[in-house]
Amino acid sequence: MNYLGIDLGGTNIKGGVVNEAGEILREASRPTHVKNGPEAIADGIAALIRELEQGETFGGVGLGCPGTVDDESGEVLCAFNLNLIRYDMRTAIEKRTGYRIRLGNDANVAALAEAAVGAGKGAHSVVVLTLGTGVGCGVVLEGKMLTGYTGAASELGHMVIREDGPQCTCGRKGCFEVYSSATALIRMTTEAMAQYPDSAMHRIAEESGGVDGRTAFTAKARGDHAGAEVVRTYVKFLAAGVTNVINIFFPEVIAFSGGVANQGEALLAPLREEVRRQEFGTAYVKKHTRLIQCTLGYQAGVIGAALLAKD
Amino acid sequence: MNYLGIDLGGTNIKGGVVNEAGEILREASRPTHVKNGPEAIADGIAALIRELEQGETFGGVGLGCPGTVDDESGEVLCAFNLNLIRYDMRTAIEKRTGYRIRLGNDANVAALAEAAVGAGKGAHSVVVLTLGTGVGCGVVLEGKMLTGYTGAASELGHMVIREDGPQCTCGRKGCFEVYSSATALIRMTTEAMAQYPDSAMHRIAEESGGVDGRTAFTAKARGDHAGAEVVRTYVKFLAAGVTNVINIFFPEVIAFSGGVANQGEALLAPLREEVRRQEFGTAYVKKHTRLIQCTLGYQAGVIGAALLAKD
Repeated sequence: MNYLGIDLGGTNIKGGVVNEAGEILREASRPTHVKNGPEAIADGIAALIRELEQGETFGGVGLGCPGTVDDESGEVLCAFNLNLIRYDMRTAIEKRTGYRIRLGNDANVAALAEAAVGAGKGAHSVVVLTLGTGVGCGVVLEGKMLTGYTGAASELGHMVIREDGPQCTCGRKGCFEVYSSATALIRMTTEAMAQYPDSAMHRIAEESGGVDGRTAFTAKARGDHAGAEVVRTYVKFLAAGVTNVINIFFPEVIAFSGGVANQGEALLAPLREEVRRQEFGTAYVKKHTRLIQCTLGYQAGVIGAALLAKD
Repeated sequence: MNYLGIDLGGTNIKGGVVNEAGEILREASRPTHVKNGPEAIADGIAALIRELEQGETFGGVGLGCPGTVDDESGEVLCAFNLNLIRYDMRTAIEKRTGYRIRLGNDANVAALAEAAVGAGKGAHSVVVLTLGTGVGCGVVLEGKMLTGYTGAASELGHMVIREDGPQCTCGRKGCFEVYSSATALIRMTTEAMAQYPDSAMHRIAEESGGVDGRTAFTAKARGDHAGAEVVRTYVKFLAAGVTNVINIFFPEVIAFSGGVANQGEALLAPLREEVRRQEFGTAYVKKHTRLIQCTLGYQAGVIGAALLAKD
């Protein structure tokens, strides 16, 4: 039996028909009409379901959504960039399609997919950290998504790592996200460029049409001191958060996705070194957490939503 | 069928016969002879088992131990205050008594007990924080103790909340434990006393034979400004760590034990206020984590070890 996974984003709604092995058999996508309100979003999801149905009956439909969702009640509690506040998505989709959807946070379902068929396949426990605009996070312990009592757990991006640090969008100060998102890396890069007018980062940014998450890494690779310093600072804070995650969960795998993770070993090698120095009982434990890249890319959201429906 | 729980501490080894309902039927205790080495500790545990046996055959024997343990291999990987490093406790006890013990970290098994029959009875998920010499922690999710891939998980005391803060015994800087243990509270109290020679804390400390975790709370209750300021600072850092725990696990219950927790509502009321202000999505989630006191006291270790054996 196949399952339908839907990944609801601020720009597009992606959907895919996924088999028992977690493979996408066919997929489709359509724009998210946020401006037209919640009902228009539900219409878009329903249209996508019908487009992918093609006469087939699915074992279930799962929906991954940004923000805070409540799978128990079927509500999206808050997804600011979609203008969804306490919106009863389950009823909205059931009315339109007859399917009673399962609901998950987008980062959580992506982690479910990476744990089942991606970077963490076969691992005891997997944490996925997405280093993008913010720091998204999903935790899967022995095959089970950590959602907590409220459905809102696994918000590791909003773990304070520097009390009284810079303001975070969540209201707290010094969250992991403020230091380890791609946004943070770009901020650090821009600050260093202002400080070092001779840095290679200026030409690199010019060549690529602006400062981005790659600028400092490229400069470091070209032997630029200021670029290397930005990478060092970024990795230092990332390591603080990652070591916290290890001391809390000691997962078998932490897998990274999002723009910054595309740096691969240029990011992961110095990160591993810093984390190993800091993790609890490092000299005595016999196993260590593996820090690796995610493997499913954009498909993780769709596959994970389908796996949630299968659950 | 009854189970035997043993709580191995630096000063005493406590043991108890526990029934299916998690009640202690009889208990005993003997000193831990740390100086005589690991074999003497194992001898003490074996003697305690024989003392409690009284002709009965137990469904199992569980041992709670400080430090890092590996229930898979049966080893205590490191328990510094007991001088146990990679010590095969399971084999040592099996040789002496015939029982194949289950092994758990002492804070983890205490949390298991509080979750099953104490403060968190009936709750979806429970985190226990022990505010003592350090910050001990155990996490129980849907009845299951979180031990991670290595057996060493749930070390929330060694989550950095202020990157580059004061040195922690674990090697990192700015850990939760450095700010929220009873030791930290006593440090903050002593510092404030040096700064405020007129504070009521001086007389209070004198009356009680020295500065302890109660000094600042007592002073605050008597209207002392400096004492109130110490409590405010302590609660601020405690709230940072507790809010992290909520954003990560969103447990139904966080239960506090250890010396500082004896302050009860004088601690918990301001803590709840500060945490509610900071927790993620607080305006939209429908459920909130309850912050309460543990109820089992010193018996949690023995009951939890027995429950581990029952598992």
